Amino acid sequence: MHKYISVSYSKVNITEGFWQRRQQINNQKTVYAVYNRFLETGRIDAFKFAWKPGDPNKPHFFWDSDVAKWMEGVAYIYNSTKGKELMKKDEELVRKVDELVDLIEKNQDESGYFNIYFTVVEPENRWKIRTAHELYCAGHLIEAAVAYYEATGKRKFLDLMCKYADHIEKVFKKERSANFITPGHEEIELALVRLYRATGERRYLELAKFFIDERGKDDPSKYYEFANAKYAQDHLPVREQHTAEGHAVRATYLYSAMADIAYEYNDEQLFDCCRKIFRDIMNKKMYITGGIGSSHNGESFTIPYDLPNITAYSESCAGIGLALFAWRMLNIDADSCYSDVIERIMYNVLLSSVSLDGESFFYENPLEVIPSLLTRDTSLKKQMSRFPAIQRSHVFSCSCCPPNILRFISSIGNLIYTYDDKTVFVHQYIASETKFTIKGKNVQIIQQTDYPNDGKITLSITGMEGRKLAVRIPYWCKNYKIERDNVEITEKPIKGYVYIDCNNEFTTVSITFDMHPRLFEASPNVQVNSGRVALQRGPIVYCLEAIDNGKNIRDISIDKNTNFTIKYDDYFGTCIIEAEGYRRDESKYEMLYQPIDFANNKKLKQKLKFIPYYAFANRGISEMIIWILVE
Amino acid sequence: MHKYISVSYSKVNITEGFWQRRQQINNQKTVYAVYNRFLETGRIDAFKFAWKPGDPNKPHFFWDSDVAKWMEGVAYIYNSTKGKELMKKDEELVRKVDELVDLIEKNQDESGYFNIYFTVVEPENRWKIRTAHELYCAGHLIEAAVAYYEATGKRKFLDLMCKYADHIEKVFKKERSANFITPGHEEIELALVRLYRATGERRYLELAKFFIDERGKDDPSKYYEFANAKYAQDHLPVREQHTAEGHAVRATYLYSAMADIAYEYNDEQLFDCCRKIFRDIMNKKMYITGGIGSSHNGESFTIPYDLPNITAYSESCAGIGLALFAWRMLNIDADSCYSDVIERIMYNVLLSSVSLDGESFFYENPLEVIPSLLTRDTSLKKQMSRFPAIQRSHVFSCSCCPPNILRFISSIGNLIYTYDDKTVFVHQYIASETKFTIKGKNVQIIQQTDYPNDGKITLSITGMEGRKLAVRIPYWCKNYKIERDNVEITEKPIKGYVYIDCNNEFTTVSITFDMHPRLFEASPNVQVNSGRVALQRGPIVYCLEAIDNGKNIRDISIDKNTNFTIKYDDYFGTCIIEAEGYRRDESKYEMLYQPIDFANNKKLKQKLKFIPYYAFANRGISEMIIWILVE
Repeated sequence: MHKYISVSYSKVNITEGFWQRRQQINNQKTVYAVYNRFLETGRIDAFKFAWKPGDPNKPHFFWDSDVAKWMEGVAYIYNSTKGKELMKKDEELVRKVDELVDLIEKNQDESGYFNIYFTVVEPENRWKIRTAHELYCAGHLIEAAVAYYEATGKRKFLDLMCKYADHIEKVFKKERSANFITPGHEEIELALVRLYRATGERRYLELAKFFIDERGKDDPSKYYEFANAKYAQDHLPVREQHTAEGHAVRATYLYSAMADIAYEYNDEQLFDCCRKIFRDIMNKKMYITGGIGSSHNGESFTIPYDLPNITAYSESCAGIGLALFAWRMLNIDADSCYSDVIERIMYNVLLSSVSLDGESFFYENPLEVIPSLLTRDTSLKKQMSRFPAIQRSHVFSCSCCPPNILRFISSIGNLIYTYDDKTVFVHQYIASETKFTIKGKNVQIIQQTDYPNDGKITLSITGMEGRKLAVRIPYWCKNYKIERDNVEITEKPIKGYVYIDCNNEFTTVSITFDMHPRLFEASPNVQVNSGRVALQRGPIVYCLEAIDNGKNIRDISIDKNTNFTIKYDDYFGTCIIEAEGYRRDESKYEMLYQPIDFANNKKLKQKLKFIPYYAFANRGISEMIIWILVE
Repeated sequence: MHKYISVSYSKVNITEGFWQRRQQINNQKTVYAVYNRFLETGRIDAFKFAWKPGDPNKPHFFWDSDVAKWMEGVAYIYNSTKGKELMKKDEELVRKVDELVDLIEKNQDESGYFNIYFTVVEPENRWKIRTAHELYCAGHLIEAAVAYYEATGKRKFLDLMCKYADHIEKVFKKERSANFITPGHEEIELALVRLYRATGERRYLELAKFFIDERGKDDPSKYYEFANAKYAQDHLPVREQHTAEGHAVRATYLYSAMADIAYEYNDEQLFDCCRKIFRDIMNKKMYITGGIGSSHNGESFTIPYDLPNITAYSESCAGIGLALFAWRMLNIDADSCYSDVIERIMYNVLLSSVSLDGESFFYENPLEVIPSLLTRDTSLKKQMSRFPAIQRSHVFSCSCCPPNILRFISSIGNLIYTYDDKTVFVHQYIASETKFTIKGKNVQIIQQTDYPNDGKITLSITGMEGRKLAVRIPYWCKNYKIERDNVEITEKPIKGYVYIDCNNEFTTVSITFDMHPRLFEASPNVQVNSGRVALQRGPIVYCLEAIDNGKNIRDISIDKNTNFTIKYDDYFGTCIIEAEGYRRDESKYEMLYQPIDFANNKKLKQKLKFIPYYAFANRGISEMIIWILVE
């Protein structure tokens, strides 16, 4: 089994361009927006363990995880800005984390157990309720502790979490004294792998594998009144699971851990399950935005090709989960299907989940919005027809997504490079500098690019002589040109990567991707999109909003022979696209239904303005559509 | 205010063709299918008033109305077959009705009150619960009693119901001793008008008007936990209501009664409200099938143009209710918008609600079916995503629709003719013979036609000299030819009717409608249908089923220049249509999303087989679609 190593975000300095701007917003705005909401809602103070019955802000059993993800995000932010001018401000954030760590130390049980809800609200039910996210919270605290240790060198949080992990090992593996065998919401598994990698303590890896191996043994009928065993991937032992099922966040966290265990144990069977599951998602259950989990009911995967646009659930956390899974697969298999999916997520469902100002969030990411539908239940006291929210919120009661977005964007540098002894892979095109070491040899790569606004990338490479650089040819790109030191490379891609020999100490590779906008169609199996197309430029999926294009947006069609005008727009942080299109003349339709007179049925020409999907709903409530008619 | 008189179904003998066949199925199969289900479910025996707590088949508060509609249907069937060979069998049905009437007599309260549920289950709550359908049940019993009296000449049932109506007058109007002012489900109003017309007792008309006038005065907050005042049309006094709101069956029964009261009282203001409401439905809230009430939630009207196909509620009873409303409007205003809507309902949503064999029924009538969606909640214990049933049932617990279909089809002859002193209007084209009297003069009209299979109609008219015959030019018809005694008539239609002078004792009018299939489009405001067309031939809306055309039916497009092949198909009882179309080549779509290569993107040609929408789901579970792509 092949293995690659990811270059850590901490070794990647994102220097300019698209992602530098998004990271700035994330690292300077989102981090405070999330903290302030958590403070207001009592999530921060909950760590004081002072809540008593009758008090406001009763802790919820998932609050630990919300704050843990924020702490993890702070670690990434701090690690990225160490030694830079921003550092002072970020040190305040670090102080806030330290205060939380002190509270964790103070309130951790002698046994090592730590959980706010099951200490102050239901202490009698510790390790009794499989559905209550205890191990999920533990996992996020462990991830935060690892990230914080790696960012700051401070061991306290890590040590506390080792103690907690030891306790979990004792209760679940040695004593088997908990009321359940595996967690109702996966997360602990991948966290324990991280803890093993940070500490070198193999017991944590073995405990992660234990939870993976035991899955499928709990009695599913005990868990949820509304869900069956597939909901939490309990329907089969993991090595017999070949399709993506159930709650999409649970699922992708499990699949991520399965890939980790396959990696660490050279477990080909487990990797094959991951490969099949990934393809089931990619080929049958993923929106064009990279979003997954199409149904609100159970926040879950449904049947293949069931990808409704208006009622899309497409939870922000599920998109992130799929990227985490794909990233792990990339460390075993250098196949661009994984990095293509990561790119699809990065530029679409990930960014749609946060406002352009970084301070409000979507939990669900619909692919089409008709605001009037939210008022359809005119004779009912409250809306009974369910639709996703059509404006981002500053806060949710279930606040898993905002800090997940925070930690993901602040560590997005993780996704750019992997390597083994012979090859360095460039998965994502992000203006950045990185230095890392292969077998004692220092390697430096400077990426200069205005991608995705522009398709030109220059890679200045030092220290790679005798090795290969493998650059991804994105799925959306028809024509491209690659030059090494001004000589064109004509090698065909292998599994989506063109391999370039670096013969010198210094090599310059320049890549030019044709960024001409392209119309995509969905498989005929995706019945909701039949007769419709989506406009993409590079990795960015575009949409129309009524605010630019008028109402009845589903009636708009694009001319398939249109010329496209590309204009950089600073508000959106990338290019907008203008194109020629049509719509029917509404003034001709007094009747609800009328026979078509094809001979006398000219549509109105209309200049269409496409904006990036990720930027929809930033200018007020508006109809929005991705999948438009074409003629 | 103009007034016309409808020629009663009892004077119309449907002699052959499309509706004779459907009436046969209705009058010989449906009537027994409904009775047997009612017997099995305890609805018939409930009239014995013997149910006690602990017994099975606890009566529901709407059961009286289910059986009443069946009794009404039997009356129409009997009246249509009197003196014919079928009569013997129908006399058995009449005996069953007589048994029920005897039970009503036996169990009617001395006060005149009659209700199964509020006698045997909750006697303490008589006239206390506005939402419990007491007056609704009373209304249907009154309608049945009037129909039965008119059909058989037997007065007993009518007299019992007069006594009941007297009781209602006393409680609601004189004493005002009930717990509410107007019924939570309208029906009593139009029934009281019928009772007035049958008995000549003006108090019943005044009581109907009382309920109409008082509507809007009840405190809506008392009624339903989930619904507001619009649900039962309580939001405004009726004379201020200009849009169709709330529960669609309640609404159309109210609007029907409003039209009746406008007619009887020459109430122009009320008629104007009816006119506006009808246009609100026709122009904004009606499916192409004539179905109304697009939402399951509240079984109700929603916002304008909100007409989803897959989740269409389109209750069978609501379609019937709209036809009843339109028919009453036609008696005030000879405008073909009303008869066109009646025709739309008759050939589409009415017939779709019953199987071709007449023995199973749709409560909801979806306009598109993707059966796989009903299995989408793979990880849930039960289906949480709601879709209409995709196969007809023999029985429902809420069984309002089957007997409503029964009584409507058995009295469909009501819808053909209206007249005043000067003009006889031909609204529907049905092979039939009728004799009636205008100002003492006998008129006979013999319609010979194979409509809607064929567009040729011959009207042989006797006794109309000096009067006009007005024939409807249907909304779907572009070209037609009318001849009177072999001379072409070139008069333009007025409000949809061509007026023909009948100068002789005997006149022959022949009409030929161009029945070429036509593609209809919906207004751009109906966003769900943008880019799609519906095929109609004459009044019949067509659909595609996967059983004939393959799966992924939303991907099929029709060639806008296709030739149509029309073939009579005895199974469906009308013509099927073949046309040229296309679909994408599924073998080319391994990827979920791919860029379109317009230069190399030939679709597969496909011969399409369209069947009448009303006949869908008669050959097993299948994808079905009305609104298809066009190119």
